[in-house]
Amino acid sequence: MESATIVLFGATGDLAKRKIYPALYNLFIEGKLPSPFSIIGLGRREWSHDTFQSNVRQSLDRFSRRKPADPEAVQKFAAAFRYSVLDIDRQEDYRKLRELIESREAELGVAPNRLFYLSVGPEYFTTIANHIQEGGLGSEEGWKRLVIEKPFGRDLQSARELNRELSRSFAEEEIYRIDHYLGKPMVQKLESLQQANPAIHALWNRQHISNVQITANESVGVEERAGYYDRAGAVRDMFQNHLLQLLMMAAIQLPHASSPDKVRFKKKLVLEALEPLSKENVAADVVRGQYEGYAAEPGIAPGSMTDTLIAARLRIDNSVWRGVPFYLRTGKKMKDKSTRIVFEFKEPLKTPWAKDAERAAPNLLVVEIGPKEGITLHLNEKDSEGDGTFKPLQVTLQAGQEDAPEAYENLIYDAWNGDPTFFAHWDEIELSWKWVQPILDAFEENLVPLHPYAAGSYGPQESDALPEQDGFRWLFDDKPEIPTEIRKGDLYAYHAND
Amino acid sequence: MESATIVLFGATGDLAKRKIYPALYNLFIEGKLPSPFSIIGLGRREWSHDTFQSNVRQSLDRFSRRKPADPEAVQKFAAAFRYSVLDIDRQEDYRKLRELIESREAELGVAPNRLFYLSVGPEYFTTIANHIQEGGLGSEEGWKRLVIEKPFGRDLQSARELNRELSRSFAEEEIYRIDHYLGKPMVQKLESLQQANPAIHALWNRQHISNVQITANESVGVEERAGYYDRAGAVRDMFQNHLLQLLMMAAIQLPHASSPDKVRFKKKLVLEALEPLSKENVAADVVRGQYEGYAAEPGIAPGSMTDTLIAARLRIDNSVWRGVPFYLRTGKKMKDKSTRIVFEFKEPLKTPWAKDAERAAPNLLVVEIGPKEGITLHLNEKDSEGDGTFKPLQVTLQAGQEDAPEAYENLIYDAWNGDPTFFAHWDEIELSWKWVQPILDAFEENLVPLHPYAAGSYGPQESDALPEQDGFRWLFDDKPEIPTEIRKGDLYAYHAND
Repeated sequence: MESATIVLFGATGDLAKRKIYPALYNLFIEGKLPSPFSIIGLGRREWSHDTFQSNVRQSLDRFSRRKPADPEAVQKFAAAFRYSVLDIDRQEDYRKLRELIESREAELGVAPNRLFYLSVGPEYFTTIANHIQEGGLGSEEGWKRLVIEKPFGRDLQSARELNRELSRSFAEEEIYRIDHYLGKPMVQKLESLQQANPAIHALWNRQHISNVQITANESVGVEERAGYYDRAGAVRDMFQNHLLQLLMMAAIQLPHASSPDKVRFKKKLVLEALEPLSKENVAADVVRGQYEGYAAEPGIAPGSMTDTLIAARLRIDNSVWRGVPFYLRTGKKMKDKSTRIVFEFKEPLKTPWAKDAERAAPNLLVVEIGPKEGITLHLNEKDSEGDGTFKPLQVTLQAGQEDAPEAYENLIYDAWNGDPTFFAHWDEIELSWKWVQPILDAFEENLVPLHPYAAGSYGPQESDALPEQDGFRWLFDDKPEIPTEIRKGDLYAYHAND
Repeated sequence: MESATIVLFGATGDLAKRKIYPALYNLFIEGKLPSPFSIIGLGRREWSHDTFQSNVRQSLDRFSRRKPADPEAVQKFAAAFRYSVLDIDRQEDYRKLRELIESREAELGVAPNRLFYLSVGPEYFTTIANHIQEGGLGSEEGWKRLVIEKPFGRDLQSARELNRELSRSFAEEEIYRIDHYLGKPMVQKLESLQQANPAIHALWNRQHISNVQITANESVGVEERAGYYDRAGAVRDMFQNHLLQLLMMAAIQLPHASSPDKVRFKKKLVLEALEPLSKENVAADVVRGQYEGYAAEPGIAPGSMTDTLIAARLRIDNSVWRGVPFYLRTGKKMKDKSTRIVFEFKEPLKTPWAKDAERAAPNLLVVEIGPKEGITLHLNEKDSEGDGTFKPLQVTLQAGQEDAPEAYENLIYDAWNGDPTFFAHWDEIELSWKWVQPILDAFEENLVPLHPYAAGSYGPQESDALPEQDGFRWLFDDKPEIPTEIRKGDLYAYHAND
């Protein structure tokens, strides 16, 4: 790993405190940061280096998964931090920043590699990137990289404009767009399990899978983000980025050993194969929901039509997934907080002599991404000591680890190393906005009904109906079951027509 | 389960004491025997009912997996046992036996269902079966069944003769030929795992498996069985029956729900698809071994050419297994005692940009049948905290249970219930002898060299060479590894031509 400087815009902000400093600290403790390294924080507040360092130390106490135990190590870590005041429009501040970067590089012997991390609102991305370029903040003797957070645009057109602007200052391969769902341990494990194991890879296709379900439910409402959220809605806040990234990771077909380029190329293939929607037919495959009471919350426009839930059926028309529906769902104020991917296997072939009791539940591959973590295979076994009927057999492929690195540790480490595998390429962003655009348009024009749902539920009945139209149901929803016999009958009736 | 009488020939013998009484006792304790039931033991010795019952009780103390704890239960169990002296040639004894069966049926209210269990040498099978038939020991009011132990003949011709004789007294569906390997828990679990799980069934074929290895090694020599063994050899003692049964269970393609008929029909298909050997080409696929010192043991003919090891490569020419070699091996005085089936998965497709370190070990499905028990899937995971290379990940599909029923419990229970699934059908016996006959002939005519091997080894080098000719090796042999790089190179070279 090459020595470098992290130039952090938004150093006094919430994300920096909660995620970035703890992530850096844990990488430091594990010896994963190069030595020496330099970190320069920027903000509008008039902080001294000392104030900044003490803020960094406090954030570790509060938010790090490893509580700082060794004062000497904390001291050494914090000593790498410097602060500079920055008004993002003031050229003079960028000049001072450059001087600080260079003097620290000289002082510490750090190579002129500079990672510009924009932990700021998207409205500032372009201005900062331009100043970095115009102020010559990148050095020709080293590399420069740009790390940015979501959102990347608010529709296809604005995303394209943003990318055009950024690309005047940074090449695509210099831009690391964070989607922190890609940094989550089980998402990365899923990819590597498939890649390392022909026995798992073999199951990953339409021949064996009947449907795939991707859920990212939150139990909270909009909280303090009302202003932002009411302009965004679930589609922009969760679906276009996180859910479509999970879709790509679920549907990707990875060769055994993959270069980052290959992974992103294959992800792009998934999006390109997504059957497009048109504005007029969105309602057939997309359910829009809003939890009851939302429009009366402070900061929300009265009568707001903003979606707090979206459920959608997607089809990937390639040789691997044709005919396998992907159900995606995300909502606020849902009964459980849970992010998971479920691959449901096809029913076994029916045999005319089989009795009902000999019908086992479908096999499942379940990826629990959060807050529970783990990858399990749900199989059946015969109750050989009992009456020979089937009983469930759950096999853990990956257990969640107490001390696993957080998403931001993985991502900052990768960006520092120049590994873009788990970052969103512009092609992915553009294709995902392109696919989502008809949904935004249809919502805007009210072509899709807005279904209210009770807080603490699993969304409106229409969301359940989506998989049920095809003979499936959202698995692991914690609600009273429809009697098994009836459901099974339905499922079998469906599969009989398969 | 219907009430019935077990009529046990060889009631004073070793198998009865070690296996049959403990099995019956454990079924009884678990409430799996009908109540009432009647057991009549037969032998040449002049025993009273009391002597017999006390012998049964002693056998439980010594050999039962559950030590008899409740004297009342043991008392009740033993009270079901009666004894009758029987000279197998004396018609009078069968008449007395019939009277005893009938009087006990009347006394206890047991239905006239009779299970004749021949725990005696094969030379007595025909005589006893004929007497059962001629003496009218089966009742027209109930069913009659014949349970017999191996060996069933000593070559194709003698097996056919034996079957012809038996079929004069018992119909095929009344004959339960025990191969106790079919009663072993992991063999039965393997079958039911495949049957109940499309996710496992999907992997069970030439598309995903590179080779299958079936090993049944013993660490002991011939012990007290010298006379029998020297006339039999490994082919007759282990290969024709146990190993070919395991082969069938490994290669069978089971529909989701299977009637016993279906299972046996499918097993037969496996044997029918076995590429036949001719006497002249046996040496190309079969290795004959004899441990050093064998011929000098007491009871062994000096200069004996009997095989104490056989290793063979088999090919199943059907759409499921064409091109997948099955390596079978059994030997005495081997380094480990172990019976297992290993399915080795194909290497992942090679990718030109892959570095050597990115090559993971092949996936394996490992069925440990004895003395260790369990079914595990050997996968790989990426060492995401380390350098991203692969490390092994072992997943247990079925753990061996401390208190699992023994093979004989499963088999006696099934025979009593009239479920022939895990018994050898005549068609299987005939086909297996047919396939084995050229080996017997070639050994007899010395067309295959007899390779000596050291006691405590893994057999002669020629046995290792068998899979190595195809780029594979016996997995889990506990001996110094050939350096990994070289082996891997070889394997890859092989697969490159695949």
